[in-house]
Amino acid sequence: MTPLNLSIDCVILGFDEDQKLKVLLIKKFINDKNDFQFALPGDLVKPKEDLLSGGKRILKSLTSLEKIYLKQFYTFGDPDRTKQKKDQSWLKMYRKKPNERVVTVGYIALVKMEEYIPHASSFAVDAEWIELSKVSKDLAFDHNEILNEGIRYLRDQIDHQLISNLLPSKFTLSQLQKLYEILLDEKLDKRNFRKNISKINIIKKTSEKQEGVPHKPAYLYTYGDKI
Amino acid sequence: MTPLNLSIDCVILGFDEDQKLKVLLIKKFINDKNDFQFALPGDLVKPKEDLLSGGKRILKSLTSLEKIYLKQFYTFGDPDRTKQKKDQSWLKMYRKKPNERVVTVGYIALVKMEEYIPHASSFAVDAEWIELSKVSKDLAFDHNEILNEGIRYLRDQIDHQLISNLLPSKFTLSQLQKLYEILLDEKLDKRNFRKNISKINIIKKTSEKQEGVPHKPAYLYTYGDKI
Repeated sequence: MTPLNLSIDCVILGFDEDQKLKVLLIKKFINDKNDFQFALPGDLVKPKEDLLSGGKRILKSLTSLEKIYLKQFYTFGDPDRTKQKKDQSWLKMYRKKPNERVVTVGYIALVKMEEYIPHASSFAVDAEWIELSKVSKDLAFDHNEILNEGIRYLRDQIDHQLISNLLPSKFTLSQLQKLYEILLDEKLDKRNFRKNISKINIIKKTSEKQEGVPHKPAYLYTYGDKI
Repeated sequence: MTPLNLSIDCVILGFDEDQKLKVLLIKKFINDKNDFQFALPGDLVKPKEDLLSGGKRILKSLTSLEKIYLKQFYTFGDPDRTKQKKDQSWLKMYRKKPNERVVTVGYIALVKMEEYIPHASSFAVDAEWIELSKVSKDLAFDHNEILNEGIRYLRDQIDHQLISNLLPSKFTLSQLQKLYEILLDEKLDKRNFRKNISKINIIKKTSEKQEGVPHKPAYLYTYGDKI
């Protein structure tokens, strides 16, 4: 047998209509001199715990966030992923066998920032939303790589199950376009966007229109029960 | 720490222009009375091996297949996934600690059957291409679930990196449509298919046409260097 340790790391991306995408990072002390390191919220899976339950437990224990739709996106198994010098100090403080291999399963979520106010606990001394462009290149372990893979997954997939909870139950095409622009980090052409979105047979036009807007009210759309 | 074992299971789907999709299964004896069980090719990852290398080594060791583009698609971590009664007999023959938890990473590949002739070795006594509709409901462990997830992944994604190696370097739209029909297991409308495929900015029309065909020659397309 090849015993090793399994962990889960969570890429929690926060969305705020007027801002850029942010990622939820925890801050952890790596020694008793108050030196710290940023990391994705992550920890070891328990012996009898399935992966999704583990992800939820770990996220809650470190950041207090719960009731979040978490989706598995990739498993990172480089045998040396926890062997870098920068990580030894923390590992020695928190792990009985700091040299043992740890494979980690990446889970991703996309949330409205204003609905999820994180509070740090356990070995996290802080939990913060950080703009993607301002994330340290020195996250713990291979967390920069995991974060990048998570963002790539999100952009490649435009996973409707992940993004539908960022919108109200009925939304305009402009709201949807704005969301895509933030996720993809690029300006989209309105006509092309509408042409493309109509092909994805997943949103449905309702007979209702916006109310109380100073311009011509737009039709409202819904994801319906398709997802 | 939470020691467990990590394995890799491979969903190798075979494609043959005139046929249905098939999956590569191994046959393994579960006792010394010649009773056997079918399973996906899979085994434990070695202590210092990364996941993709492990997948390639395992696939080769059990089926002799090599030089295949393997893609990770999902990790299966149910703590009881190897605890079913049907699997105990094999586990006791082949594992020192048959009760230890095993988490498995699923890898998928799509190959032209005629290019990959499997030969069984190691604990596999046979390696066969089996039509999806004829796969036993009693595969080892949770391999029916892993196979289903793999097929779902393939259909959801229509991953061009996976499917491009099923086609010649230049192909007609009819060949591409036929391939999609086999993968999706449904007949597609020619006009809609062409409309939809032209939107995926990934294939490119060449200036060349088919040669030596009894009908009006069709233009040839290519994936170019986009993937």
